[in-house]
Amino acid sequence: MARIAVVAGDGIGPEVVAEARKVVDAVLPGVEVTEYDLGAARYHRTGEVLPDSVLDELAGHDAILLGAVGDPTVPPGVLERGLLLKLRFAFDQYVNLRPSRLWPGVTSPLAAVKPGEVDLVVVREGTEGLYAGAGGSLHRGTPAEIATEESLNTRHGVERVIRDAFARAARRERRKVTLVHKTNVLTHAGSLWSRTFETVAAEHPDIATEYQHVDAAAMFLVTQPQRYDVVVTDNLFGDILTDIAAAVTGGIGLAASGCINPDGAYPSMFEPVHGSAPDIAGRGLADPVAAVLSAALLLDQLGHADAAARITAAVSAELAGRSPEVTVRTAEVGDRIAAQAAG
Amino acid sequence: MARIAVVAGDGIGPEVVAEARKVVDAVLPGVEVTEYDLGAARYHRTGEVLPDSVLDELAGHDAILLGAVGDPTVPPGVLERGLLLKLRFAFDQYVNLRPSRLWPGVTSPLAAVKPGEVDLVVVREGTEGLYAGAGGSLHRGTPAEIATEESLNTRHGVERVIRDAFARAARRERRKVTLVHKTNVLTHAGSLWSRTFETVAAEHPDIATEYQHVDAAAMFLVTQPQRYDVVVTDNLFGDILTDIAAAVTGGIGLAASGCINPDGAYPSMFEPVHGSAPDIAGRGLADPVAAVLSAALLLDQLGHADAAARITAAVSAELAGRSPEVTVRTAEVGDRIAAQAAG
Ligand SMILES: CC(C)[C@H](C(=O)O)[C@@H](O)C(=O)O
Ligand SMILES: CC(C)[C@H](C(=O)O)[C@@H](O)C(=O)O
Repeated sequence: MARIAVVAGDGIGPEVVAEARKVVDAVLPGVEVTEYDLGAARYHRTGEVLPDSVLDELAGHDAILLGAVGDPTVPPGVLERGLLLKLRFAFDQYVNLRPSRLWPGVTSPLAAVKPGEVDLVVVREGTEGLYAGAGGSLHRGTPAEIATEESLNTRHGVERVIRDAFARAARRERRKVTLVHKTNVLTHAGSLWSRTFETVAAEHPDIATEYQHVDAAAMFLVTQPQRYDVVVTDNLFGDILTDIAAAVTGGIGLAASGCINPDGAYPSMFEPVHGSAPDIAGRGLADPVAAVLSAALLLDQLGHADAAARITAAVSAELAGRSPEVTVRTAEVGDRIAAQAAG
Repeated sequence: MARIAVVAGDGIGPEVVAEARKVVDAVLPGVEVTEYDLGAARYHRTGEVLPDSVLDELAGHDAILLGAVGDPTVPPGVLERGLLLKLRFAFDQYVNLRPSRLWPGVTSPLAAVKPGEVDLVVVREGTEGLYAGAGGSLHRGTPAEIATEESLNTRHGVERVIRDAFARAARRERRKVTLVHKTNVLTHAGSLWSRTFETVAAEHPDIATEYQHVDAAAMFLVTQPQRYDVVVTDNLFGDILTDIAAAVTGGIGLAASGCINPDGAYPSMFEPVHGSAPDIAGRGLADPVAAVLSAALLLDQLGHADAAARITAAVSAELAGRSPEVTVRTAEVGDRIAAQAAG
């Protein structure tokens, strides 16, 4: 049976993760769970972000489910670089998978977009680009200060994520991959991405392809999100585009993600796209759907496609049945999805 | 009288620039115009992108009005780096000004947003960041290829654009500046931007400030564009955010921009955000509003605030009177705006 590490984290993290676990138990009893206390609370208590011993223990699990980490009281970058990005890089999670679907019952902020019309997945590169941490500064705090941030891109890293995107497109109905970059300005990295994309595309004559600059893609996600099937892009562009995709499909309260090491050499990590939302934490008002869907991605990745599909169907039923007048109650939503998914 | 260089460019560029000139003539007769033939057509004919002699001549003008340059037949980067970015950098156009307004009569793709509710301006840094052209590659075309792109940020560059944003906010009604960056990942540049922002903000206790990560800002531009007044951000983030802002306020067909050297040491350049749109070029179907509004920004920059305001009011009347069933005819739109602005 699968061994899962759970990092509930801060704010609403523990609340939504509790529901995700409830749902997993309902569809796949017997999953072994170990809880890890990481995040802002631990950092404040002990000064530790991610001790090596914990990293080693996490590596021994089949997958990680993460709620949310962070708090306005922690300086920017500490938990992001020290925990979230550390895990993505240490576990070589090069596919940052972010599906966006406009579920029946959910209203898009876009007037012209109807439920069922948007069903896209962004395959965001997870281990390179501007996230590599290659930057620095000189003469800090003086008028002469300069600061740099460097985007590092390798053929190795670009090719494997593009291959993953094509493999996913091949399993979908519309079979289309859109490459998003900024080749007209970032000519070096852009050329590497384009040439690699063309090479892989040539091996998949049955898959339609297109290229868009990131500014155009950001615009089209607002005016015509229906046009996308699989989008493959670099780490930073993917960060921005997936928040737009989430916004047009009902908000980050519904958006799930997976940081995946497809080779299986390391555990993959699954987490809602939303943050720890300290403003509503502890009140039982957080929507657990994003965490539940992240758990479904996790089960799918571990080979439990049926269990994942049952969760997804139960979420769909939950959302279709929601009335905009009724306040979301975290535990009630989890109960309903669990009951429905258990069948 | 003002001496303006006009680069009509490719595709719909000449069509929309003709209308912008018509409108300028109507409100401010006697502006001296010199036309420069630059863009894809010249590149194909002569292999030249921007000869030094032309750059020198352009430098002798009070401002530049540009239509659009580019064509799918020109390799990515050639005209962008060789012409558009070359001008922005050579003329130290560090304020890339991009207002977005939802005009009366224009329907936003966002169901909940009504005309008049969105009125924001993005002050995008124009001479630094990932646009500096600091990148390279090794082992090109082999499995060992790497490609880098470097974001260069100086206190000098960051401070002057932030000061400009605060000065603009001080002249607006809501007096609010939002800094957008990605300080939790791009910690070096992020820290420089944040610290500089705080220093300048402290000199403006009457201006409200907020900070958002770029992914969150991209999302909020879709869910609550009303919340923004002045947004200040780096070159690449500004590129992406302004296309989203354009999309939610009726599309890039209406979006004007100015690449401004506020010191006046070099000419500023004004251009519609849209491209050359080869698919509709030559048919008289392009909407000239973005070019006309760019000309208004130009006149405003040259101290002709009244003439600029008359153009803006005429555009507002034009848009308010449009019926969605009637096809836009480039020259007719220009005629109507010119007549109205001439008053
Ligand atoms: C918290 C931050 C480091 C992270 C990112 O930028 O990747 C987040 O925005 C996300 O999208 O998962
Ligand atoms: C054409 C390109 C170089 C340019 C940019 O990226 O700045 C364009 O997208 C813009 O926004 O003016």
